[in-house]
Amino acid sequence: MAEIVSGKLSSVLNGHSCEPPPIWLMRQAGRYLPEYREARARAGSFWELCTNAAAAAEVTLQPVHRFDFDAAIIFSDILVVPHALGKAVSFEGGRGPRVETTRSPVELCRDAGIWAERLAPVYDAIGRVAAALPKEKDLIGFAGGPWTLATYMVEGGASLDQAAAKLWAYRNKESFGELLGIIGACVAAHLCAQLKAGATVVQLFDSWAGGLSETLFRDCVITPSRRIMQEVRKNVPHAKFIGFPRGATQQGYLEYLEATGVDAISLDTAVLFAWAAEHLGGKTALQGNLDPLALVAGGEALRDAVHRLLADAKGTPHVVNLGHGILPDTPVENVAELVELVRSTR
Amino acid sequence: MAEIVSGKLSSVLNGHSCEPPPIWLMRQAGRYLPEYREARARAGSFWELCTNAAAAAEVTLQPVHRFDFDAAIIFSDILVVPHALGKAVSFEGGRGPRVETTRSPVELCRDAGIWAERLAPVYDAIGRVAAALPKEKDLIGFAGGPWTLATYMVEGGASLDQAAAKLWAYRNKESFGELLGIIGACVAAHLCAQLKAGATVVQLFDSWAGGLSETLFRDCVITPSRRIMQEVRKNVPHAKFIGFPRGATQQGYLEYLEATGVDAISLDTAVLFAWAAEHLGGKTALQGNLDPLALVAGGEALRDAVHRLLADAKGTPHVVNLGHGILPDTPVENVAELVELVRSTR
Repeated sequence: MAEIVSGKLSSVLNGHSCEPPPIWLMRQAGRYLPEYREARARAGSFWELCTNAAAAAEVTLQPVHRFDFDAAIIFSDILVVPHALGKAVSFEGGRGPRVETTRSPVELCRDAGIWAERLAPVYDAIGRVAAALPKEKDLIGFAGGPWTLATYMVEGGASLDQAAAKLWAYRNKESFGELLGIIGACVAAHLCAQLKAGATVVQLFDSWAGGLSETLFRDCVITPSRRIMQEVRKNVPHAKFIGFPRGATQQGYLEYLEATGVDAISLDTAVLFAWAAEHLGGKTALQGNLDPLALVAGGEALRDAVHRLLADAKGTPHVVNLGHGILPDTPVENVAELVELVRSTR
Repeated sequence: MAEIVSGKLSSVLNGHSCEPPPIWLMRQAGRYLPEYREARARAGSFWELCTNAAAAAEVTLQPVHRFDFDAAIIFSDILVVPHALGKAVSFEGGRGPRVETTRSPVELCRDAGIWAERLAPVYDAIGRVAAALPKEKDLIGFAGGPWTLATYMVEGGASLDQAAAKLWAYRNKESFGELLGIIGACVAAHLCAQLKAGATVVQLFDSWAGGLSETLFRDCVITPSRRIMQEVRKNVPHAKFIGFPRGATQQGYLEYLEATGVDAISLDTAVLFAWAAEHLGGKTALQGNLDPLALVAGGEALRDAVHRLLADAKGTPHVVNLGHGILPDTPVENVAELVELVRSTR
């Protein structure tokens, strides 16, 4: 087994192969956990849970306690950045989050002092988790990618085809570039502050990077992501990055990796892990990419998927994770079985 | 210029490179056209337009008359197949189509005589269009892929993550395979009948093939598509196929092509055309893949996209099209400009 630098996740991000590999799950502090549902009911709402540092720290630790995951990821939401930029965010009702829409970059707050004030609960929560977490566990901070955040800010919420954001990008490349620049500056500041507060790794989630034309993928995903990482590394030289351009084409993953030099790339469910091990594996660590639905299904489907993943990943520095966030109706016992399968397979 | 076998589209599907390349657009008979909106208002509803052969033939010809496209695609809907299988389909309200849900393969009608009866208006419409269409224009028939149809039939409509269909596939591979088999038999019969009625080419639309795990893509997209094409070719040896596994990974496109031997592969917007020209272009004709949003935007974004596409495709047998259906709010003048750009660029 390779030398452990700090946590197993950090070790893999430093290029070491670990066996068994480290495991954590995107959205691991979430609704599938009864203790999370209780904490959320006590807090009153999802947003109150995000902005109450003590409660956020508590739910962050829940899945680590229950499943002995190798990393905690701070409980927060990518929409804290639009909120820091001065836009109202709400999570009422069942239609997914709503964000006050943005029609021009001039509407956004550019004062880094105000950003830090509005984002302070996240850093407070990170400090609390860092103090409580055993030192062999990593603590992951995160932010949404500028493209993904822009789609929410332009559309006012999640959308199937991100039409409004794409149209803005096509019709007025310059002003859309300015919008991405302001969001990116806030994202960079947010990631730096999370690392300074105690996060050992940060992940950039570009959840809506799929289905973009070549031009939009380069201008709206790759370029802003590269800028953010350069800025963060300038301020926090030891920063470790996981990049997640979800839904990118294989060529897109390759170009993203080459442009950003991320320490690990998180693969969505559709990417063939064997392809990634061959073409990306020598240049970065891999993370992912079990189907969240295979985890809901459990049984033979789950065992098959885990065995195939571990076989394809053998010898490659990699982190077991899903291809997307864990789903609310995932049986807790399937998660326990997944951890057991990963740790017992040779 | 290469020899024209019948239409320019057929010629490209036979492996000849045409300059300028043929052009048609997915959903070209649609709501962006004022004459379509008029015909639909007269028919009463989308479904009545689909099932009235005279009206369907009329709207099929509209975009060919207006833009001199190189092919007509019969005006119909992929949900005629679930309807033929005995499930109620409705297009009321603004939430997208609804399909009576399917819980078991035994619920479905397996009587090919009844299928043909229920699908007769499509064949009638094809006969009318074939009679009216100049012989240098191709007439495209189509059907949805079994996976895409199954997602509608299991979920009861379109869904963001096709969770219910994936869960069925993971939990009970055998019964889901049986479901795909019955749908596939009806799809094959439907494509054969369209070819016999006068279609010169057929396209298989697997619109929800994106984001699938390796296992599901192979079992639910590739295997059923290959079976359908084998069955159709057995009955109609001259059948020409365009395959559209929308959202597949690059590896997925490669495997789909190798397994099915389609005469052309339709690429979604995210696929790098230069990659496709290099890796798929020698084995099949390419179709696509302009961003429908670049067509809505028009202006420089559209001109850039068209010029890049034509440069990347130069020398490869290809058909200009979008990466997905044309959007209802596309300005008609942008479509005219697209056709002009394609026909005037050298």
